[in-house]
Amino acid sequence: MNAPAIPEPYPADSVGLVTPQRVAIDTPLQLDCGRTLARFDLTVETYGTLNATASNAILVCHALSGDHHAAGYHSPADRKPGWWDNCIGPGKPLDTRRFFVVSLNNLGGCRGSTGPNTFNPESGRLWGPDFPLLTVRDWVRSQALLADTLGIEQWAAAIGGSLGGMQVMQWTIDLPHRVRHACVIAAAPKLSAQNIAFNEIARQAILSDPEFHGGRFYEHNVVPSRGLKLARMLGHITYLSDAAMRQRFGSELKLAAPAFNFDVEFEVESYLRHQGQSFVDRFDANTYLLMTKALDYFDPARDFGDSLAEALRRATARYMVIAFSSDWRFSPARSREIVRALVEAGRDVSYALIDSQLGHDDFLMPIPEYHRVLGAFLERVANDIGPTGAPT
Amino acid sequence: MNAPAIPEPYPADSVGLVTPQRVAIDTPLQLDCGRTLARFDLTVETYGTLNATASNAILVCHALSGDHHAAGYHSPADRKPGWWDNCIGPGKPLDTRRFFVVSLNNLGGCRGSTGPNTFNPESGRLWGPDFPLLTVRDWVRSQALLADTLGIEQWAAAIGGSLGGMQVMQWTIDLPHRVRHACVIAAAPKLSAQNIAFNEIARQAILSDPEFHGGRFYEHNVVPSRGLKLARMLGHITYLSDAAMRQRFGSELKLAAPAFNFDVEFEVESYLRHQGQSFVDRFDANTYLLMTKALDYFDPARDFGDSLAEALRRATARYMVIAFSSDWRFSPARSREIVRALVEAGRDVSYALIDSQLGHDDFLMPIPEYHRVLGAFLERVANDIGPTGAPT
Repeated sequence: MNAPAIPEPYPADSVGLVTPQRVAIDTPLQLDCGRTLARFDLTVETYGTLNATASNAILVCHALSGDHHAAGYHSPADRKPGWWDNCIGPGKPLDTRRFFVVSLNNLGGCRGSTGPNTFNPESGRLWGPDFPLLTVRDWVRSQALLADTLGIEQWAAAIGGSLGGMQVMQWTIDLPHRVRHACVIAAAPKLSAQNIAFNEIARQAILSDPEFHGGRFYEHNVVPSRGLKLARMLGHITYLSDAAMRQRFGSELKLAAPAFNFDVEFEVESYLRHQGQSFVDRFDANTYLLMTKALDYFDPARDFGDSLAEALRRATARYMVIAFSSDWRFSPARSREIVRALVEAGRDVSYALIDSQLGHDDFLMPIPEYHRVLGAFLERVANDIGPTGAPT
Repeated sequence: MNAPAIPEPYPADSVGLVTPQRVAIDTPLQLDCGRTLARFDLTVETYGTLNATASNAILVCHALSGDHHAAGYHSPADRKPGWWDNCIGPGKPLDTRRFFVVSLNNLGGCRGSTGPNTFNPESGRLWGPDFPLLTVRDWVRSQALLADTLGIEQWAAAIGGSLGGMQVMQWTIDLPHRVRHACVIAAAPKLSAQNIAFNEIARQAILSDPEFHGGRFYEHNVVPSRGLKLARMLGHITYLSDAAMRQRFGSELKLAAPAFNFDVEFEVESYLRHQGQSFVDRFDANTYLLMTKALDYFDPARDFGDSLAEALRRATARYMVIAFSSDWRFSPARSREIVRALVEAGRDVSYALIDSQLGHDDFLMPIPEYHRVLGAFLERVANDIGPTGAPT
């Protein structure tokens, strides 16, 4: 599972062509909902080389609609690389010359990992709505089994943005001895009522689509495209700041005068419709429901008398918390809540507020200051590994 | 059309029982879309008494989902009064002892005024999607014809919040000699791309509902309830601030642990579903589409080289602009844009920023500071009328 040599014509700082692997995990996984998965598969990409002591592995956790394809290209015909390609590669913050980077499609996902759109061996049909709803804790457990399979006892670092950052936090609470460094980006200690409201409307759009068929749309050879499209359009509103939207789309009519119909009249309408439609072509509605529920359920303080600090007292990782000034989905105030809890818990934490324009989506962008902060964090991570590749 | 005497058991500061009137307007109305309505009806409520010189009339313009029923009760069984009852009545800011308050259901509305859910005399069936899309300018023209019918040459004041405030602005630009005072509350000089994005998703929810039937759902004995419900839920997110949602609903699970299904688990879900459902029972989907389009099209600067100040140079009204600190739909920054344009145009303007918690919906709330500001504004309006009821 080592990264391939970088072929031409990819840039020198690209991981180049990558091939996703399917990792079979035959250990039963007990879930928070009370059910147990006898076995499951995870689709995984890795970049870089695991060192002899397995001390240089970094786990990348993906957000709501992300997947395992974080860097490089799947074929020379690919127009776009993985979703975090600007951050992963030789000489980039997640430097694949020194780190072994592991990126997976989460359990319940729709890109090859066991989830609603895969076969349920017990029923012989697609899981669909029978697939259990998951929590972030379930993901941590499933990712720990993946680490076992890969021979990684302890991650040099776990890193993720948005829902990915929540997984990182949960890792440090649930399995503190298995994470040395934790980078929590553009996340929140739990969802606000407004966050949940957005998720609920997205879910209702999908659930009320007549072509959802109670989640068994596969068997009707349809997809709830209207609902999924609406859900995605709604998501996009929360990924961009008001100012970024204004700058990107203005609010001028495409024509000088109104057309007095419901065709596209403003750039932002065209953008949203395109985003919605292309999402329908690549994402599974049941997975979308599951992901939004995992977000809503995320609340690491719940089992600790609603004290996040109490939850974090058991953690041992060194933290980096990063927020973006223009992010209104998970605003800097939410990141500061995490930081305050870490400080109260006596943890080692650095905090960076990145001046940004785009909004929540900035966590995916190659903002120089952001990448400098990530680079400094990963320098500390590398120093913990030591020049020989052995943890110091 | 005078207000009835206040019957028991209504409070002394209530306008009491009111009866909506249907005002027939037989003057043809030319619309911005190029079409002409040969005639139309408006549903109207009035409170207070028009003085002999017709100088004490105040026009109240409603917002997206509002209607003519602004104050009082339609029957003793009514549980709730009109939507701005806290502001209209004897001794309230819009004091019906001295003002004659006119509140209408806008053209294109769904509460009795000519609109998509009324009969088109030319086709003999409900207008539905054949009803023309309207602009705020069209509404001003239609309201001017209403004023003519009522014998009101000049409004002592026009007042409105949100989309209502936009109508007030447009009045002062299009018919400056007919408005002495203008109160523009929680409005914006035009919509931002984000505002339009929310409207577009609401429209797509309705338009893509299979029970919309191209707007002819009446003839199929259904309503596009799923789409309309989603549209309303989405609207509600923008009416409340994040902090207000947090305070009102928290984000705690109703149960101590997740239920792992799609039933209501958080208070905010229950609130949104209820708001959505009750809206379906009282609102028309075609009207909702029309209202959101009128919002998107609103741009009084368009015909003035994109300069709002240039547009406002022709205005003569004295302005009061009011914004709410917690409003993120039409934030105080948007109100300040209006104020700056008014100052640049050399207009008489006062501006008040009300410290508030709830969000956009605060313009409907009896916040003491807000009502004091409104009261001071209306005192100036009353002073312009003079103690005898004649304009000074």
